[in-house]
Amino acid sequence: MRAIPNTSFLSHHHPAAVSAVLRSLRHCIPLFPRSFSLTPIVRGQLTSTSSAELDIARTGRSASIASPPSNLNTAQKIDVNPPKGTRDFPPEEMRLRNWLFQNFREVSQSFGFEEIDFPVLESEALFIRKAGEEIRDQLYCFEDRGNRRVALRPELTPSLARLVIQKGKSVSLPLKWFTIGQCWRYERMTRGRRREHYQWNMDIIGVSDVTAEAELISSIVTFFKRIGITASDVGFKVSSRKVLQEVLRRYSVPESSFGRVCVIIDKIEKIPIDDIKKELRSTELSDEVIEELLQILSVKSLPNLEEKLGDSVEAIAELKKLFSLAENYGFSEWIQFDASIVRGLAYYTGIVFEGFDREGKLRAICGGGRYDRLLSTFGGDDIPACGFGFGDAVVIELLKERQLLPELNLQVENIICSLDPDLQGAASAVAAKLREKGQSVDLVLENKPLKWVFKRAARINARRLVLVGNDEWQKGMVKVKILASGEQYEVEVDDLE
Amino acid sequence: MRAIPNTSFLSHHHPAAVSAVLRSLRHCIPLFPRSFSLTPIVRGQLTSTSSAELDIARTGRSASIASPPSNLNTAQKIDVNPPKGTRDFPPEEMRLRNWLFQNFREVSQSFGFEEIDFPVLESEALFIRKAGEEIRDQLYCFEDRGNRRVALRPELTPSLARLVIQKGKSVSLPLKWFTIGQCWRYERMTRGRRREHYQWNMDIIGVSDVTAEAELISSIVTFFKRIGITASDVGFKVSSRKVLQEVLRRYSVPESSFGRVCVIIDKIEKIPIDDIKKELRSTELSDEVIEELLQILSVKSLPNLEEKLGDSVEAIAELKKLFSLAENYGFSEWIQFDASIVRGLAYYTGIVFEGFDREGKLRAICGGGRYDRLLSTFGGDDIPACGFGFGDAVVIELLKERQLLPELNLQVENIICSLDPDLQGAASAVAAKLREKGQSVDLVLENKPLKWVFKRAARINARRLVLVGNDEWQKGMVKVKILASGEQYEVEVDDLE
Repeated sequence: MRAIPNTSFLSHHHPAAVSAVLRSLRHCIPLFPRSFSLTPIVRGQLTSTSSAELDIARTGRSASIASPPSNLNTAQKIDVNPPKGTRDFPPEEMRLRNWLFQNFREVSQSFGFEEIDFPVLESEALFIRKAGEEIRDQLYCFEDRGNRRVALRPELTPSLARLVIQKGKSVSLPLKWFTIGQCWRYERMTRGRRREHYQWNMDIIGVSDVTAEAELISSIVTFFKRIGITASDVGFKVSSRKVLQEVLRRYSVPESSFGRVCVIIDKIEKIPIDDIKKELRSTELSDEVIEELLQILSVKSLPNLEEKLGDSVEAIAELKKLFSLAENYGFSEWIQFDASIVRGLAYYTGIVFEGFDREGKLRAICGGGRYDRLLSTFGGDDIPACGFGFGDAVVIELLKERQLLPELNLQVENIICSLDPDLQGAASAVAAKLREKGQSVDLVLENKPLKWVFKRAARINARRLVLVGNDEWQKGMVKVKILASGEQYEVEVDDLE
Repeated sequence: MRAIPNTSFLSHHHPAAVSAVLRSLRHCIPLFPRSFSLTPIVRGQLTSTSSAELDIARTGRSASIASPPSNLNTAQKIDVNPPKGTRDFPPEEMRLRNWLFQNFREVSQSFGFEEIDFPVLESEALFIRKAGEEIRDQLYCFEDRGNRRVALRPELTPSLARLVIQKGKSVSLPLKWFTIGQCWRYERMTRGRRREHYQWNMDIIGVSDVTAEAELISSIVTFFKRIGITASDVGFKVSSRKVLQEVLRRYSVPESSFGRVCVIIDKIEKIPIDDIKKELRSTELSDEVIEELLQILSVKSLPNLEEKLGDSVEAIAELKKLFSLAENYGFSEWIQFDASIVRGLAYYTGIVFEGFDREGKLRAICGGGRYDRLLSTFGGDDIPACGFGFGDAVVIELLKERQLLPELNLQVENIICSLDPDLQGAASAVAAKLREKGQSVDLVLENKPLKWVFKRAARINARRLVLVGNDEWQKGMVKVKILASGEQYEVEVDDLE
């Protein structure tokens, strides 16, 4: 569970109870399409349309309605919303998503990472781990028509591990790979939480040194700076699972309990401490170890940690190196040591980190860490690896909070309109010519009053209106109006640039 | 079923028999992860790696393996391939996909279209039509944890229709929207067919005139030209469902049979003609009507069609206008009338078209048409609409056939390496500086021999190697080597551009 923040779990329930709760939340859509909601509920952001635009819409529509009786035999109201917890991306939302993804891509590429992807539908086995993670109870899983157990991916790392094993020795290490993919979790729908999100992942495969973690955190910081987020908005809490591992080792706790213990500890701020202790006891930890663990987790500075554990501990050397590299990269002010950070996924083995909103209003923004032993759990040879996940939801909330959302408007360079139905073909020819020259063109496809055309031109932020009228066309010319200045002239079609 | 070609169906079986066949194809992955394949099968394109690269891989790996016993308790071999019929996108495949999608996007935008998207998981009801389409038996559908019937989308048009109804009067018509989304169908795996593909859709909502269809076909032609495909490689067969509708009307066949009849006729080249006739009879068409339909379907020219149906038929006027507009746009040589084209989806109502490989080796490349009555089947008010779907698979096969696949290599501008482990931080600082200036940088994260660094530089097509060595660093300088020319010089870090 990387980019989806810790708090996004139903963690105040015991996992076993979760599916029961979820099953009780039976909703609107029945097994078969019979009794859908009677009136389409209009959602979305486009409700601020002016009445003028509505008139245009009505004109456009009334001029062209065609509704003989349906021949599909299924006429009935459907729910016009996407399935609960999922999103449509109408144009304005899509522009924002594209802007965000473009920033993910450009940052990744500036760090020399290559883009990859996997199927959104994977074998369920890839996500079934036995460490008590909530991810398992939140899987969108089913049996396909070939009796395979499959699941919509809840995260991207297991697919990455699968691909790395598959590629084997045919690829040169280190691999620096990034991906932006949709992930699915059946979570309870509270506080605007959704069941799908897109996640940006960057992973370095084949580097055991903490230089890799530093490079990853530097990527995220670079991304934040690009979109206007500063170190006073966001920080990173950093720790290492090797701290916990060291404590367990000292008390001779078997290493096989490690993943399970981490998953329990990750819930510390979400469920009562007595429940945490109870769960830890169920993994056969003694009260003494539990107290020691809880003490260590409260440490907030590296010198204090060193005091407690001594200076020969690997975790401390690595954390020191990471903080030293942060100075070189120039992101020191973004990071702080915090032993309470363990992250909720079983497979992390070393450094773990989490990006948080300094105002404390939002859930974790991103998270990641080192997972040197994931490949062997799938039957491959282990290769040192680390990575992070960064969801598309919380960062957008943060940008809204800070009023940093970009203004992204549709912009089509030209709008072309014929002044006579007989000249529609001529207008098409002009549009084709301009597009061939690399210009974007919105061609008016029906006979419309000029008033309508100007309104549309304004809506699409056109720079230029090209009118194809009889008099000019006979001379091989068109009328051009620069919309910002009002400047107007005639030009030969071939000279339009 | 727009971009997935007609022939991609199991249409030689009666739909009812299909699921039985599919269920009999039980495969490798059991209900629970117990007995996975014993050896990972290495697939993919990366097998041509040179032995030099393999050495690098081994060096990189052996220097950094960490494999204490796993703590996740799930060690077992998994199938390292993606689920049957699905794909991974390792970097080289992803570059190709991004190139293709970028061309889809740029063409769409040059036509003034806005990008949208919907969830890959939709309500099953959206795709359940009663016209006997095979799409229904090929749904990846299941019941989610909230007892909702959901499905991975097999096509994008129903989601588009849902969004248009949802937006209602808040949007101005016409809408010109495009989307590129993954679609899923549980098809039998033969001849390299897959169960997922990405589909580019462009749709115009709110224009009843055939100018809309002309604009759409012009978009596809523009796309083909961009990627090097010509009118001697690809053509479009165009017809109108109103031709069939006219024949049915003349024989007083109830309009409610129309969708079903079209779906049957679409199978004409895939199943024996006697089976077609039998299926048509089951929709209560008389032998006389069936013969008349089959005769009409064999017509390959508009004048012949006019001869048969008379010149007052709407279909003929629309087709004539489309062919006339094609001349204006300049894509006449790409299109031809062919009455046998009906397309396999029930909801088309007017012009239908299909892009085909002129050598006849490949399945249909794309397809689309007018669907003026889809919205009312979902309980909305009908709005005239047309669109197309264009899959990512067949066009790539075509580009391979014609040797037009682009060469897309990873290119990172700089590779930066410290010559001393103590200078790793310095190298990080140099990398951060260059990235801030907009340069892409692959930073070497571990201490490696120079020979290794040069090999990596070649692999990532770096233009410049920046070496951070002690002597230069003390003067605030680094050593730069331009890799193409071998030119080498020292430069102050701040002067690196």
